[in-house]
Amino acid sequence: MTDEQQDREAAVTAQVLRSFADCADPRLREVMESLVRHLHSFVREVRLTEAEWNAGIEFLTRTGHITDERRQEFILLSDVLGVSMQTVAVNNEAYGDATEATVFGPFFVQNSPEIGHGEDLAFGAVGEPCWVEGTVADADGAPVAGARIEVWEADEDGFYDTQYGDDRVAARGHLFSDTDGRYRFWALTPTPYPIPHDGPVGRLLAATGRSPMRASHLHFMVSALGRRTLVTHIFVRGDELLASDAVFGVKDSLVKDFQPQDGGAPTPDGRDLGGRSWSRVDFDIVLAPDGA
Amino acid sequence: MTDEQQDREAAVTAQVLRSFADCADPRLREVMESLVRHLHSFVREVRLTEAEWNAGIEFLTRTGHITDERRQEFILLSDVLGVSMQTVAVNNEAYGDATEATVFGPFFVQNSPEIGHGEDLAFGAVGEPCWVEGTVADADGAPVAGARIEVWEADEDGFYDTQYGDDRVAARGHLFSDTDGRYRFWALTPTPYPIPHDGPVGRLLAATGRSPMRASHLHFMVSALGRRTLVTHIFVRGDELLASDAVFGVKDSLVKDFQPQDGGAPTPDGRDLGGRSWSRVDFDIVLAPDGA
Repeated sequence: MTDEQQDREAAVTAQVLRSFADCADPRLREVMESLVRHLHSFVREVRLTEAEWNAGIEFLTRTGHITDERRQEFILLSDVLGVSMQTVAVNNEAYGDATEATVFGPFFVQNSPEIGHGEDLAFGAVGEPCWVEGTVADADGAPVAGARIEVWEADEDGFYDTQYGDDRVAARGHLFSDTDGRYRFWALTPTPYPIPHDGPVGRLLAATGRSPMRASHLHFMVSALGRRTLVTHIFVRGDELLASDAVFGVKDSLVKDFQPQDGGAPTPDGRDLGGRSWSRVDFDIVLAPDGA
Repeated sequence: MTDEQQDREAAVTAQVLRSFADCADPRLREVMESLVRHLHSFVREVRLTEAEWNAGIEFLTRTGHITDERRQEFILLSDVLGVSMQTVAVNNEAYGDATEATVFGPFFVQNSPEIGHGEDLAFGAVGEPCWVEGTVADADGAPVAGARIEVWEADEDGFYDTQYGDDRVAARGHLFSDTDGRYRFWALTPTPYPIPHDGPVGRLLAATGRSPMRASHLHFMVSALGRRTLVTHIFVRGDELLASDAVFGVKDSLVKDFQPQDGGAPTPDGRDLGGRSWSRVDFDIVLAPDGA
């Protein structure tokens, strides 16, 4: 490439950066300038062709047109490019032994049912019962009482309640840690499922040789006064999808032993499962201080 | 930031890059890897907040929903971020004295009317008449005969024919350079106009203190066998918008003297303009070889 060509390309970027000189919001200016620098570097680095630029415009157009109140293809795009997980990483800085965060996902619902300790949040969703218990503590090891623990998951057919298009509320609920910071409940053993892959993002995954499958997981959101709210999942040790999770949500520290239990094995609370097999998992949660 | 935090953030990017290892198309893999690296660097560099990430998702969603067959808000977004001009720069490398390229824009139409030399392509569009003449040559100075010269522009109310929603064809046409590589025609003196700014891109411009106005210009697309097709504009020297063109299309080499002519001044071809004022401009075009 000639010097003149390099100068021409650099001049385009410089001109765009100058255009933000009158931006009254310094944070907006900072964000836009960084975005412009990186988008331009991308175009220069790959020598983006005009056909590829057109393909990009068409991809974004299709992504916009499939997005509605029930489906958010731009979030899916952010997820499969790891932009969501990078944003999670930036906003949940490492703090002592604080439990790591992962993607929020689109399936959380406000006002889930409250359950008591040892109760079942499946509410009829199909799947193998799973006993979940653990503690909520701060980074110094002191128990956190009264932490709100929100839990949600897909059923064994791979669907969240909200995906059925009726008004069912199932496989979700919340409870509060007790005075010792402990909690325990029944849920379902997590099973894998694909992200919606019949749209532009699914076609991108197929074209790049990637799977739309998410590793099996159970969602948690844990909040308490004075603590940084934790949005995370726990994953199933041994799941063959751990290394290829479509949205890059897996962290080693979040992979837990879901111990399989035979049908006859006695349950922790004496619940009669009618001879069905079940599993159990321990998940001790550590919350960082607010603002950490 | 702790080392552990830096490692976590770098690990997210590394994991996403690894996910493209099975991509069968090496070019697609190269483009996706570069895009991921730059998007992740952007998130880390500005420490993008979750609220800002959400605002980005909402912006893209609105941009998708306003886009239809008549309006392409993603192209507009690419234009105002200078991504379009950076792509033009990358795809039209400097070659000797070859005329510089600029943005294509959304207003080109296939099958424009053919005009003869000296004829008028305004076809009734309102505006001051403008005599345009020049040569088409190769980089060695040899004339290029039979080059197809497509020309289009807005009328003096700031609208292209396609924006009127009827079937009019006006202020556009094409002709061919003669055996000496020369061409000449009547058009309209270019006038400034805003890009569509009643959507998300317009709100972005307003929030960042930028104007939606385009500097006055006349569009050209010039193609000839064995030559790199040139898509460009010429701009009006003295136009106060030259330094703040909303889509960064202006190049110094494309700013031309549109010489104002009094109502009584004789026209080059003896055309009677009924005493109206007019202008004239020379534009000599140099085409790079195909594949340059």
